[in-house]
Amino acid sequence: MIMANPKVVLAYSGGLDTSVEIAWLKNAGYDVIAVCFNVGEEEMDLSAIKQKGLDVGAIESIVVDARHEFATEYVLPALQANALYEGVYPLVSALSRPLISKHLVEIAKEYGAVAIAHGCTGKGNDQVRFEVSIHALAPDMIIEDPIREVHWSREEEIAYAKDNNIPVPITKESPYSIDENLWGRANEAGVLEDPWVGAPEDAFARTNSLENTPDTPAVVELSFVQGIPTALNGKELPLEELIAQLDHLAGQHGIGRIDHIENRLVGIKSREVYEAPAAEVLIKAHQDLENLTMERGLGHYKPVIEHEISNLIYNAQWFSPLFNSLMAFIKASQTDVTGTVRVKLFKGNVICEGRKSPLSLYNEDLATYTSSDSFDHESANGFIKLWGLPTQVYAQVHQHAEQKD
Amino acid sequence: MIMANPKVVLAYSGGLDTSVEIAWLKNAGYDVIAVCFNVGEEEMDLSAIKQKGLDVGAIESIVVDARHEFATEYVLPALQANALYEGVYPLVSALSRPLISKHLVEIAKEYGAVAIAHGCTGKGNDQVRFEVSIHALAPDMIIEDPIREVHWSREEEIAYAKDNNIPVPITKESPYSIDENLWGRANEAGVLEDPWVGAPEDAFARTNSLENTPDTPAVVELSFVQGIPTALNGKELPLEELIAQLDHLAGQHGIGRIDHIENRLVGIKSREVYEAPAAEVLIKAHQDLENLTMERGLGHYKPVIEHEISNLIYNAQWFSPLFNSLMAFIKASQTDVTGTVRVKLFKGNVICEGRKSPLSLYNEDLATYTSSDSFDHESANGFIKLWGLPTQVYAQVHQHAEQKD
Amino acid sequence: MIMANPKVVLAYSGGLDTSVEIAWLKNAGYDVIAVCFNVGEEEMDLSAIKQKGLDVGAIESIVVDARHEFATEYVLPALQANALYEGVYPLVSALSRPLISKHLVEIAKEYGAVAIAHGCTGKGNDQVRFEVSIHALAPDMIIEDPIREVHWSREEEIAYAKDNNIPVPITKESPYSIDENLWGRANEAGVLEDPWVGAPEDAFARTNSLENTPDTPAVVELSFVQGIPTALNGKELPLEELIAQLDHLAGQHGIGRIDHIENRLVGIKSREVYEAPAAEVLIKAHQDLENLTMERGLGHYKPVIEHEISNLIYNAQWFSPLFNSLMAFIKASQTDVTGTVRVKLFKGNVICEGRKSPLSLYNEDLATYTSSDSFDHESANGFIKLWGLPTQVYAQVHQHAEQKD
Amino acid sequence: MIMANPKVVLAYSGGLDTSVEIAWLKNAGYDVIAVCFNVGEEEMDLSAIKQKGLDVGAIESIVVDARHEFATEYVLPALQANALYEGVYPLVSALSRPLISKHLVEIAKEYGAVAIAHGCTGKGNDQVRFEVSIHALAPDMIIEDPIREVHWSREEEIAYAKDNNIPVPITKESPYSIDENLWGRANEAGVLEDPWVGAPEDAFARTNSLENTPDTPAVVELSFVQGIPTALNGKELPLEELIAQLDHLAGQHGIGRIDHIENRLVGIKSREVYEAPAAEVLIKAHQDLENLTMERGLGHYKPVIEHEISNLIYNAQWFSPLFNSLMAFIKASQTDVTGTVRVKLFKGNVICEGRKSPLSLYNEDLATYTSSDSFDHESANGFIKLWGLPTQVYAQVHQHAEQKD
Repeated sequence: MIMANPKVVLAYSGGLDTSVEIAWLKNAGYDVIAVCFNVGEEEMDLSAIKQKGLDVGAIESIVVDARHEFATEYVLPALQANALYEGVYPLVSALSRPLISKHLVEIAKEYGAVAIAHGCTGKGNDQVRFEVSIHALAPDMIIEDPIREVHWSREEEIAYAKDNNIPVPITKESPYSIDENLWGRANEAGVLEDPWVGAPEDAFARTNSLENTPDTPAVVELSFVQGIPTALNGKELPLEELIAQLDHLAGQHGIGRIDHIENRLVGIKSREVYEAPAAEVLIKAHQDLENLTMERGLGHYKPVIEHEISNLIYNAQWFSPLFNSLMAFIKASQTDVTGTVRVKLFKGNVICEGRKSPLSLYNEDLATYTSSDSFDHESANGFIKLWGLPTQVYAQVHQHAEQKD
Repeated sequence: MIMANPKVVLAYSGGLDTSVEIAWLKNAGYDVIAVCFNVGEEEMDLSAIKQKGLDVGAIESIVVDARHEFATEYVLPALQANALYEGVYPLVSALSRPLISKHLVEIAKEYGAVAIAHGCTGKGNDQVRFEVSIHALAPDMIIEDPIREVHWSREEEIAYAKDNNIPVPITKESPYSIDENLWGRANEAGVLEDPWVGAPEDAFARTNSLENTPDTPAVVELSFVQGIPTALNGKELPLEELIAQLDHLAGQHGIGRIDHIENRLVGIKSREVYEAPAAEVLIKAHQDLENLTMERGLGHYKPVIEHEISNLIYNAQWFSPLFNSLMAFIKASQTDVTGTVRVKLFKGNVICEGRKSPLSLYNEDLATYTSSDSFDHESANGFIKLWGLPTQVYAQVHQHAEQKD
Repeated sequence: MIMANPKVVLAYSGGLDTSVEIAWLKNAGYDVIAVCFNVGEEEMDLSAIKQKGLDVGAIESIVVDARHEFATEYVLPALQANALYEGVYPLVSALSRPLISKHLVEIAKEYGAVAIAHGCTGKGNDQVRFEVSIHALAPDMIIEDPIREVHWSREEEIAYAKDNNIPVPITKESPYSIDENLWGRANEAGVLEDPWVGAPEDAFARTNSLENTPDTPAVVELSFVQGIPTALNGKELPLEELIAQLDHLAGQHGIGRIDHIENRLVGIKSREVYEAPAAEVLIKAHQDLENLTMERGLGHYKPVIEHEISNLIYNAQWFSPLFNSLMAFIKASQTDVTGTVRVKLFKGNVICEGRKSPLSLYNEDLATYTSSDSFDHESANGFIKLWGLPTQVYAQVHQHAEQKD
Repeated sequence: MIMANPKVVLAYSGGLDTSVEIAWLKNAGYDVIAVCFNVGEEEMDLSAIKQKGLDVGAIESIVVDARHEFATEYVLPALQANALYEGVYPLVSALSRPLISKHLVEIAKEYGAVAIAHGCTGKGNDQVRFEVSIHALAPDMIIEDPIREVHWSREEEIAYAKDNNIPVPITKESPYSIDENLWGRANEAGVLEDPWVGAPEDAFARTNSLENTPDTPAVVELSFVQGIPTALNGKELPLEELIAQLDHLAGQHGIGRIDHIENRLVGIKSREVYEAPAAEVLIKAHQDLENLTMERGLGHYKPVIEHEISNLIYNAQWFSPLFNSLMAFIKASQTDVTGTVRVKLFKGNVICEGRKSPLSLYNEDLATYTSSDSFDHESANGFIKLWGLPTQVYAQVHQHAEQKD
């Protein structure tokens, strides 16, 4: 009787690293199921990657087009939370990791695989995001990470590739390490490592330099229904399409470059360069519409929740009870965020020029109406007295105590 | 025996409103001491204002040059707290009110005045800031606010001025209501009241429109010592001078325009247009240097404090025990924020291109040194296991519970 | 043609104050609809109060038995939020005000009333809670508060009562001002006003003094399903019944006395004495069960939300968008809070002796199982290295900088 | 030439575990310096422990009496922060670890040691606290933890002890694992592991069971100066003495037992039983005095900081920049916390019966004085209007929008 090999599901990109992983996992006794994800990276030849997976030794090669799911179930909650890690980074890679993990777990269960493999290094955040997410969905799953396990040098990896008949790219390796999806593009390492040196122009791919942007602004109207972007210039679009079109346009105008000294979850500071044109425009427009439609108390507290959600997403806690509860808050907060924002995109700037909503709490007529009622001097007078009473009493007591001394 | 009139100290601007107030207070039986403050408004003829105060009936007219004090004791703490109300407004007017209140109280005590008067309307935040600040410093002081008390219409006010020999400006009234100081310029009302309509170009005075900015960027180096901006392009400057020079330069490049739907303390939403070129540059540069020099835990918690401080300053609580305690936190947080940030000012953008510090926690050598020690796969491995353990156990328990059902 | 009088709906207690209000409102030209609420006050003769309302001049007198609604829609959310204002006060009165306001508005709409009246003084929190709640539900409703408006002295009030044929109680007035419902009893004023003087025994009504408690403990098992108390000692009970029984038992054992210097919303400190036996037991048991079943991240963040919810309830914001969003968080947080807590009630102490749950995250078997997997020394080792890395790098940099100096 | 052995400084308790460690470290080639700390454990024979250290092989044996330092530099900040992890645990062990780490580092530097050793297991929090603290003070120090490294079984450890001439206690091992100091006593493991089973009486050592407490209450007056406990019943005492006396008294009255399901830093839930009589009394009295003397804004925000500080202390971050900045807040918050609290200790209850302060913000005279000024109905009226305006406008807009639909 012949025993079947145990199966492993691998997050496969088609590049050298994950191709070598197929060989390594195979040599370790696994049957490898390679899975490649489309989460909106700009240029991907999915059928070629699928074929390559089989060529380098996978028993099964799967392509998952997750753009719609990524936009609606991962990017949208982040947008509604105006999620920016450390105030600036729209969590590009951090958002795709839980989606990929979820699919890997589902495919593993479907194929009866005992293990899941990824190809992250031991210094980054993504290893944590994959493994914590996978174990939050399948707590008993074995996780393999050959890259972290083996520590190949570049030369060793190429030698291992040649020994296992894996084609090695002839072109000189890029100095950058890139991760990209619908919501943006992350770039680290190499020449960027000195934080005093400005990021060189070839570090960017989705944005024009300010010097090369058009001299005429683009003005777009973004419509939202309950916090969901639904239309661009009045034309309804699926979210992934709206983001892609806006990203292209905003990138042309030089919008969305981020140069950030970042605190990684693993305890070190790194220097990261991001491009996220659509993310910057959509978050600013969304915030602007929230300012118009959100009652003050909610508007003032929501940033506290946003801060926590941004940290959770960055810190690998997407599939956690706390994230669920915080997202219940966010979902409830969006019921009135309906309306349109007119945004001018020009020379790297996102300028919210106008905003309107059927639920606008800034209403000129109403303002005039309520002013006569509410803004007589007695209201302000009484309000000020009680608002200032604790510090006034404090002053009285301390004045009295000092006089005694 | 002739009884002296009670004295009132008035915050005097030289404009029609506060000139009329002098007459009104005099008619109410007060001897008026007019005090005019220079907190860095662009164009002020202080000696003319001083003389006008006497001309319209004050018994004493005082000019206070508070630029240095304003910069170092009010703007600087706000900068160190990266204070932005609702994430965008650098608290321009809100910062000058406590300074003015403090001087009014000191002058009142010096002259034996029983009352202090200001000229704020009943719909704004400044009335609250003045009165709460004054009562936090002098809890028994009488506060007069003729403008709110009397509710003159424009016509009534002019008639009252003429009756009291107060010169009425011939020029047509500006459609805007402006408040200005070293840290920025606030503009509200009039044509700005429809939030769907973009702010017209004549609403701005300290910034060029993007269309009129230079085609060559300005690159400046900003140096900080323990969170205090000390030099511009290597040249040491008093803080008020540094801010003024930077403000002029950044304004030329179209930096610092803010168009904001704001929640006022008195409970309404207003539409505000601000210009704060230096504030935008300094806050961004300061944050960038904090990212480089601040340990992760402190860097991640400080925004929570900043959020609270921004609210306190906006909400008239500068002279409060909570503000004192929060500022003790901020002061302690700044000990390592020393270094230089290279900033590119171009087409409305503030781009932090490079940053360096003797206390940089991003240190390439150190990174290389510690990596061999700290980033072997075992560290990451063990970290991930324990970091993900609570959600993994949660998944195990819930998987088990579901299987039982 | 005879015009009908405008109608006013009055929150009516049957006491002197609100009886006098009926007369005052009638004299002011209103037809008065008196509404009396049963929210679980210990002793109330509802039919007598109803009749008295008519006797003293109301055109309609209504009794609302709101005990079940109060328990399930107001007390329960507060319990799930472990809501304690300033860490100690279970928000007894603050919880009944929104319920009463909601019914007053509904009755006003049903009867076509133009106004709602209450009888709160101008120094307390309840006036704010009634008026803010009413205007959050019916923004155009007129609100009458004769007590605050007229400022009767005690003698004036009695005279007014006699003039209007309102019976004045013969018994000497209690020195206390009491408000009471299912969730507790609040007592302020009079002899309690000196915070250095202990509260006298006659300030309490629902709790035995420790000296008079039984010498044998009561042990009860409290069962929860998704954060809802469902059974007492295994017997399922409607929530209002469970609270009432538990309150009686815990009160016998001297549990739930609170003596608190409190910051009122209107800006003053007051000294309050509360009794809330059931509240203290249920909140402690609920927290204990949360500790057992709640994943760490959620368990650690929930108190932040609880703090905010407690403030909102106290500060009259029950019917606000922020409260809605926060309660969405709370509701989502309760899905796993199922199980039983064994509580010993003895001599004023609430001792959670044991707790169990099918969703317990403390699971001995699991612990043993996972320990071999997760607690080898390498995991702890790696975790500690990365957990301490930011402060270690900080130390290295600063040690290096000091050596240079 | 004979090379000297490298030196290691060991935190030595005199027990079997750390005695075996001396042998193990010696066998590993180290010269061992044993250091024993007195942080207020109830019964310690320090000279015997010192001698034993030498007997089992240390080259140097040192005793550090750190009671005063522990009380004033570790316990006091925690008290001023009312620090309770997860709302209940006064951080007994967590507070001694940074003190011990600091001394170990100082002794290591004094003796030229290259390493520091402790004896914590791999499942607890203390290993993290020691190692993170040590590396925050001496980032290049080697850390040895034989217990975690070697994983002896009980039998193996005894065998190793006998092989190395270390005396093995004849008495049967306690079923409990205890850590104790001035601030309390922690007990875990063994029979306590089933959270449904009540803690047995022999788990406790510093508190009487309620059944065995005196039938007469003790009433004590606790005086504070700027948040520092200075006198017990009017008698000034050094802090460590005040705590020790109060602990004994409160323990007699059955105060300070805590039975808690706790989230450890290493990711698991544990069941802990603590006794902290003095801590419970002092924290409650301190909070009570804060309620009397602290302005509302500060009083309401301080718990947010306290929550964070409690987490930091528990999570090994005592020596971190964030802790420093938070403690600057706490220190600033204590300037007015001066006065006396009268506390009744009875049958497990801590009852703050009275409190007084020269800086009391609850001042009857003042209250009466300010009431006429501040609590006329207009103040309350105006305050309520503006306080409720955001939700009122929200209601108006939504009522209008619904009518349109």
